[in-house]
Amino acid sequence: MSPREILEQYKNGEITLTQALENLPSHGIEEMGFATIDTDREKRTGLPEVIYASGKTAEQVAQIAERMHQKGIDVLATRATPEMYEEVQKLIPGAVYNPLAKTIIYRESKYENDKGYIAVVAAGTSDMPVAEEAVETARFLGNRVESVYDVGVAGIHRLFHKLELIRNARVIIVVAGMEGALSSVIGGLVDKPVLAVPTSVGYGANFEGVSALLGMLTSCASGVSVVNINNGFGAACQASLINKL
Amino acid sequence: MSPREILEQYKNGEITLTQALENLPSHGIEEMGFATIDTDREKRTGLPEVIYASGKTAEQVAQIAERMHQKGIDVLATRATPEMYEEVQKLIPGAVYNPLAKTIIYRESKYENDKGYIAVVAAGTSDMPVAEEAVETARFLGNRVESVYDVGVAGIHRLFHKLELIRNARVIIVVAGMEGALSSVIGGLVDKPVLAVPTSVGYGANFEGVSALLGMLTSCASGVSVVNINNGFGAACQASLINKL
Amino acid sequence: MSPREILEQYKNGEITLTQALENLPSHGIEEMGFATIDTDREKRTGLPEVIYASGKTAEQVAQIAERMHQKGIDVLATRATPEMYEEVQKLIPGAVYNPLAKTIIYRESKYENDKGYIAVVAAGTSDMPVAEEAVETARFLGNRVESVYDVGVAGIHRLFHKLELIRNARVIIVVAGMEGALSSVIGGLVDKPVLAVPTSVGYGANFEGVSALLGMLTSCASGVSVVNINNGFGAACQASLINKL
Amino acid sequence: MSPREILEQYKNGEITLTQALENLPSHGIEEMGFATIDTDREKRTGLPEVIYASGKTAEQVAQIAERMHQKGIDVLATRATPEMYEEVQKLIPGAVYNPLAKTIIYRESKYENDKGYIAVVAAGTSDMPVAEEAVETARFLGNRVESVYDVGVAGIHRLFHKLELIRNARVIIVVAGMEGALSSVIGGLVDKPVLAVPTSVGYGANFEGVSALLGMLTSCASGVSVVNINNGFGAACQASLINKL
Amino acid sequence: MSPREILEQYKNGEITLTQALENLPSHGIEEMGFATIDTDREKRTGLPEVIYASGKTAEQVAQIAERMHQKGIDVLATRATPEMYEEVQKLIPGAVYNPLAKTIIYRESKYENDKGYIAVVAAGTSDMPVAEEAVETARFLGNRVESVYDVGVAGIHRLFHKLELIRNARVIIVVAGMEGALSSVIGGLVDKPVLAVPTSVGYGANFEGVSALLGMLTSCASGVSVVNINNGFGAACQASLINKL
Amino acid sequence: MSPREILEQYKNGEITLTQALENLPSHGIEEMGFATIDTDREKRTGLPEVIYASGKTAEQVAQIAERMHQKGIDVLATRATPEMYEEVQKLIPGAVYNPLAKTIIYRESKYENDKGYIAVVAAGTSDMPVAEEAVETARFLGNRVESVYDVGVAGIHRLFHKLELIRNARVIIVVAGMEGALSSVIGGLVDKPVLAVPTSVGYGANFEGVSALLGMLTSCASGVSVVNINNGFGAACQASLINKL
Amino acid sequence: MSPREILEQYKNGEITLTQALENLPSHGIEEMGFATIDTDREKRTGLPEVIYASGKTAEQVAQIAERMHQKGIDVLATRATPEMYEEVQKLIPGAVYNPLAKTIIYRESKYENDKGYIAVVAAGTSDMPVAEEAVETARFLGNRVESVYDVGVAGIHRLFHKLELIRNARVIIVVAGMEGALSSVIGGLVDKPVLAVPTSVGYGANFEGVSALLGMLTSCASGVSVVNINNGFGAACQASLINKL
Amino acid sequence: MSPREILEQYKNGEITLTQALENLPSHGIEEMGFATIDTDREKRTGLPEVIYASGKTAEQVAQIAERMHQKGIDVLATRATPEMYEEVQKLIPGAVYNPLAKTIIYRESKYENDKGYIAVVAAGTSDMPVAEEAVETARFLGNRVESVYDVGVAGIHRLFHKLELIRNARVIIVVAGMEGALSSVIGGLVDKPVLAVPTSVGYGANFEGVSALLGMLTSCASGVSVVNINNGFGAACQASLINKL
Repeated sequence: MSPREILEQYKNGEITLTQALENLPSHGIEEMGFATIDTDREKRTGLPEVIYASGKTAEQVAQIAERMHQKGIDVLATRATPEMYEEVQKLIPGAVYNPLAKTIIYRESKYENDKGYIAVVAAGTSDMPVAEEAVETARFLGNRVESVYDVGVAGIHRLFHKLELIRNARVIIVVAGMEGALSSVIGGLVDKPVLAVPTSVGYGANFEGVSALLGMLTSCASGVSVVNINNGFGAACQASLINKL
Repeated sequence: MSPREILEQYKNGEITLTQALENLPSHGIEEMGFATIDTDREKRTGLPEVIYASGKTAEQVAQIAERMHQKGIDVLATRATPEMYEEVQKLIPGAVYNPLAKTIIYRESKYENDKGYIAVVAAGTSDMPVAEEAVETARFLGNRVESVYDVGVAGIHRLFHKLELIRNARVIIVVAGMEGALSSVIGGLVDKPVLAVPTSVGYGANFEGVSALLGMLTSCASGVSVVNINNGFGAACQASLINKL
Repeated sequence: MSPREILEQYKNGEITLTQALENLPSHGIEEMGFATIDTDREKRTGLPEVIYASGKTAEQVAQIAERMHQKGIDVLATRATPEMYEEVQKLIPGAVYNPLAKTIIYRESKYENDKGYIAVVAAGTSDMPVAEEAVETARFLGNRVESVYDVGVAGIHRLFHKLELIRNARVIIVVAGMEGALSSVIGGLVDKPVLAVPTSVGYGANFEGVSALLGMLTSCASGVSVVNINNGFGAACQASLINKL
Repeated sequence: MSPREILEQYKNGEITLTQALENLPSHGIEEMGFATIDTDREKRTGLPEVIYASGKTAEQVAQIAERMHQKGIDVLATRATPEMYEEVQKLIPGAVYNPLAKTIIYRESKYENDKGYIAVVAAGTSDMPVAEEAVETARFLGNRVESVYDVGVAGIHRLFHKLELIRNARVIIVVAGMEGALSSVIGGLVDKPVLAVPTSVGYGANFEGVSALLGMLTSCASGVSVVNINNGFGAACQASLINKL
Repeated sequence: MSPREILEQYKNGEITLTQALENLPSHGIEEMGFATIDTDREKRTGLPEVIYASGKTAEQVAQIAERMHQKGIDVLATRATPEMYEEVQKLIPGAVYNPLAKTIIYRESKYENDKGYIAVVAAGTSDMPVAEEAVETARFLGNRVESVYDVGVAGIHRLFHKLELIRNARVIIVVAGMEGALSSVIGGLVDKPVLAVPTSVGYGANFEGVSALLGMLTSCASGVSVVNINNGFGAACQASLINKL
Repeated sequence: MSPREILEQYKNGEITLTQALENLPSHGIEEMGFATIDTDREKRTGLPEVIYASGKTAEQVAQIAERMHQKGIDVLATRATPEMYEEVQKLIPGAVYNPLAKTIIYRESKYENDKGYIAVVAAGTSDMPVAEEAVETARFLGNRVESVYDVGVAGIHRLFHKLELIRNARVIIVVAGMEGALSSVIGGLVDKPVLAVPTSVGYGANFEGVSALLGMLTSCASGVSVVNINNGFGAACQASLINKL
Repeated sequence: MSPREILEQYKNGEITLTQALENLPSHGIEEMGFATIDTDREKRTGLPEVIYASGKTAEQVAQIAERMHQKGIDVLATRATPEMYEEVQKLIPGAVYNPLAKTIIYRESKYENDKGYIAVVAAGTSDMPVAEEAVETARFLGNRVESVYDVGVAGIHRLFHKLELIRNARVIIVVAGMEGALSSVIGGLVDKPVLAVPTSVGYGANFEGVSALLGMLTSCASGVSVVNINNGFGAACQASLINKL
Repeated sequence: MSPREILEQYKNGEITLTQALENLPSHGIEEMGFATIDTDREKRTGLPEVIYASGKTAEQVAQIAERMHQKGIDVLATRATPEMYEEVQKLIPGAVYNPLAKTIIYRESKYENDKGYIAVVAAGTSDMPVAEEAVETARFLGNRVESVYDVGVAGIHRLFHKLELIRNARVIIVVAGMEGALSSVIGGLVDKPVLAVPTSVGYGANFEGVSALLGMLTSCASGVSVVNINNGFGAACQASLINKL
């Protein structure tokens, strides 16, 4: 059947939408057998296709990266190991690795959001890998970023010292482990959306980030929403969407 | 000590910031013994003080509402029972109760955000109480709202049917129980921030909303953040901050 | 735009599938404001739209039932209270209520699957409400059903006594609480698919059905799959799809 | 055997300590069949025997209270219902009931600790029942108490406003639900031991107090220890022992 | 006693069934000391005895495989390491190893089910090891298989693109980690039984597969049942039983 | 087929044991439609069939009790409500109800075990319902019982006072809520098997008995095993089997 | 004070039992600084002091073993590594290591319990390490043991084949992972106490043994009690106490 | 603005406290980019800044240590590896490492608290690393410490033997894994505050310390409060604050 016939039948109610869908030609897909790249994602969602490297082989990561590169899509791989970077670099020499953030990035886009900056605030030095993932991702998506590290609530004057920088951001990403109280305190002091990222920093009753996650979800401050444990990437994606408004 | 002396001592490093803080005069507080109203909250955080009615007596709710009203603060009480409303109404006759949303509202402010609207999308009819809490809160905060109900993924064409209305919003609140898959599907189809509200709709392995919560936190779509289970209020607060950008 | 134009644009890659979707006319939807009936579900999925009554008001249940009835769809409401039934009966006098199964049914379809029967096996008398929900649903979907009750593994000869009846079914639904061991034992004795339904029967370390759920998921027998705790309805749906093969 | 003989045998190693123990005469026990009052507890542990009323009948509570009263022990019953109070009052007319704290108290002791006071700080109005249990218990044990309510971190200046009163205490009890962040913030601002009491105030991911409990256990502030959820009584006991040092 | 005497006594009610059982001669067992092979399993359950290699030594795996091979039973070992394969190969040279699926297979049977095929659909590239275990197992059991990889809901048009292939299967195995939403979406689009396999792909609130497991169990689509986390083998076993109907 | 033919075929390996089983005549079963009484249980397991009343209707309990009574089986129903007792009493006038233990008992058997007694030790007064269920069950099964109540470890001399009575038992049932430490302490002081029964007495981090359950399972004393939370019945059954050795 | 004076004062009520205790001379203790050997344990509890090697250094294990050996106590170390054995062997050449059970044993005692045997029944080959720990411990304690391996319920005739051997034991230890159903099935077929040992054999929803643990705790068979996950040692200890009755 | 102007504006209510805070000059902070040292902590909280080494690189630990040393702050790093110590030693040659406690310490302060000692009591030898962390921290903070090891409740006379030493302390830290019962027993025998430290010593249902944590939180003894699992450091900090009263 031709697309026209499909649509006619659907219009007449002879076939269901589902049946129509499965017969429509497909755009925005790049098939690789073990992977199906969503080349249309940025146009549709405002966020490009990226590579979640965990659980993939170094070869798979490199092949996907190369194919995206060939299709003119900027490359971001998260949770990437040095071994993966080595493979990627063979195919895309200009790719850059941040070993703390565990990101591989190759960016050709010139887009820069000039509306304001995203603040990435981390409670402790041990939260830096997650914070850096957020910083790298946010910059990859064209945002200006200011980072503020080691200002946890046990010494709250450290936070006050940086409050102006934080309050002037358009969106604030708060990265904290242990009890995650920093997001509540900041949420009570700023008039911008706070995106909270619980981390698995801590031990015992931290339960790999659960204490921070629950603390952030039940925050007594109202303008706080939460992403997955250690998900600096996801927080930066949402922050970027917000920062474009 | 006078404020000036305090500041001088702090400036000279003779006292700590903490010691300075505890001696500074206080603004933005209305003390009621059993409650301490934060009259300064809206100026500071962009969101006014509200009454979380659960766990308070009807009398306490009414007294706080009246005091806020006297101070010129618009009143919103969430998780309010009909008994609480009865008490409030005695003191603030114009207050309005939404029994589905369980909100008591008295609003005098004329502020209306004209930048665009917030979409509140609910997966099922049983999710409506939470969705309505979000709708009432968002309107109370001066936002325009469009609501879309009963478009869960088991019949995904119902969602497509409303997709344009959803995509044109500036922020999207997705309310869903059970497996909470709706936020992933919408997150993959729009280029605006999605705030996901898991609900306790379901039974068994839903564990009072845990399945939806975990599903939303681990969503494969990138622009999704999450608030507490059944927290329509919090999602609307965050959405309102975003919608003002 | 007309459907034809939409399709042409999509075909030429000018718009994305998503954009096409949101502009296509819609079939198979019956909008009621608080609910959106999926009238097309049976054609699409082999299972008709049904009403999950929990969390809805009696009025909502009755109105949805009536609208479905008007559209010629057979009515099944699960988790329904006597109050809901009272409301439904006013609008659909022939509807039948099973207080143990908590189902409301009105069926006009004449379809009967003649390929064989579904066996519903329950470990204990206290598991009967869940088993009955499965029996009612399976019959509503046109299947022949044989039920076997109170044959838990603590007295395994009770099971052997009924083994022939169980082995001759085409699909077997096993309903059990406590440790849920019955599904493993039956799974090791039959050559047909076993659908296990954990129930919340038990106390303490049963944790409202968790012990049975985990036991069934980790069953050492290979041909067993599991549905949600107390989900007799879902097991019957799956069994019906299988029984039609 | 006489105590002397027991001891001789033990001394010579002919019997074990355990065998010695079971033959020694007993002091400090008041047997009532369904209960065994530990009349020696205060001398041994610094805290008198008290009645945990939950799960006991009103008659049992009253009978234990009366027997303690007869033995000259001051009476404190926690988690007591009005019905229990009614029964107790029949036997001990002077007993006093605090319906918010759910305590029944009859105290004849004149002991007052004059070393300083215990501060009881509660994050929200809904935390007051737990805070009041702590206040009543601490006073019953002879301590001076200052209470500070509704100073949660969402409006942190409310806390600063009371900081002097809190810092001047010898021990600080912090009562908070939701994310329990108040104990971390106070822990970082004072040089006295902080006893944190998580409450079940909140909903959803609060999980009946778990979020506050985990947050307090993983607090980034160092001088914080924690008692059971809603255990205002236990915090006051610990605070009283500390305040006597 | 001879079997006849046993049966006579049982018939007369002199001994219990249990006593009869323990005295009956045994068929269908192959004893190896550390293992007891169930040589009768395929005749009884439609699924042959297989080796769950995890927790066994390479030597144990090889010895069991060899004994099964000697008894004319086709060999399938799951969760097998390369070391195990090395040992098996020494004894059964024709055995084949799939390092992604971690399966060792030696199959002599000629049986091929010609009723239709099983579709194995995986949400992401990282889910492939589990999907491959399902594919290998289903083929070992004589089924035709079609696999569809990397069609997660974040780019739902990738799924529509393959919908016809999926809808034409007789049984569909859906393999997904993270929130596991794919099974709900597919369950709402097909009229065949869907067997959902949650995977441990993800991090943080995925909790080693729990988020996907709960999401699949609470799916709003009705024709979905679930197996253990990462249990591609079990899904294929049940799919094979269904496909034979 | 006659039993003889079945056996012959089985002996010759023509049919499997399973096939033999399903064709054998059945003894020891009393079918009631909604229930299948295992009349053979005592002979087989040393413990008679009993009625777990929870989740059954009062009528079902009474009918099962009557049928057992007619078959000469002594009646024990656990978790029984006063309404159930009322129904049972109509049919079995001599039945006795213990409202604390929630047991209905009618016993004609004269059997008394004269080997020694079972000690039932409860940590607190609030644990008495569970302890009484154990006492009633153990006596129903023909054992002599000594009970010791309110000897929790917070006043350990209360325990020493009763140590001789406890040490002289043949089996010891320890019933405790909260942290369940009593089983460890007793386990370290006696040379008889200790059966620990965790109870749901407590609040907060007790999590309905979980703290006691985990504490008893991880006891540092070696001779302790555990039954389900609040399962006084099960502990008494196990104790009775042991006491008969 | 002399022991006599202590006792006199205690007798006269001048000091508490606690005060008496702390002044009494001590027997049955062997102090080593980092360890305090309970040399009196066997006399008191019927079970000797043993070494739980996990978390200790090889040197600590060896030193404790040697000291016990010097005091004439037979040596059993559980959870011991080959490195620990190497160290022990240097000091106690005759010690024997079982690498599967991970036990080090040196036994001089001639005691053999002649009342009957303990049956150790394991569901699968992968459960053998735990079963062997039970076997080694039970023999160390002087019991005769019969072991039955790989008789899980997926092939229940394997169990019937061994039923006589199992039924003739005085106590039965059932070791099983996955869903742990074997203990329920055996519990329903024997009239002796069953001690269930859940193992961490399995994956996914097994949650390191939780599924088996919960299944065994909620067993529908009455004469079953449970020990900690993988605790073959503890089961053998209790079995030995029971077997001595 | 000058500090004076800030304060004037705040005094006049023109700016909020928050706005004042963010403009005040800062004391007590030492910025290092990746870390922000709280040099003012000891003055403010009675406890100096310390280094939580886990999750930091060896270089970061060494640099922070050096900077603190330069500022005249005594150095304590917890959870430190030998590699970290090596780096620290290069910069601070006098630093001392305790490999059991995993602490690095360099202390110049002469302060010694002469009010009394802290008792650190550990249930088993395997709990020593946590106990040693408490001992090292308490001494670092200027306290006298007495330690008592391996006195778990399975051999309770070992505890009585040391009771006098324990009772004479001003604060008691109890370190225990498994069921953590030791804190309840000691709590019932002393009249001083008990700080309980659950450890992850144990296996299976210990769940990495959860059983001990819950047991301690739900202790039936009243004067017990709890810190995080394995948090010997935190217990020592609070004990030190208490010991200074």
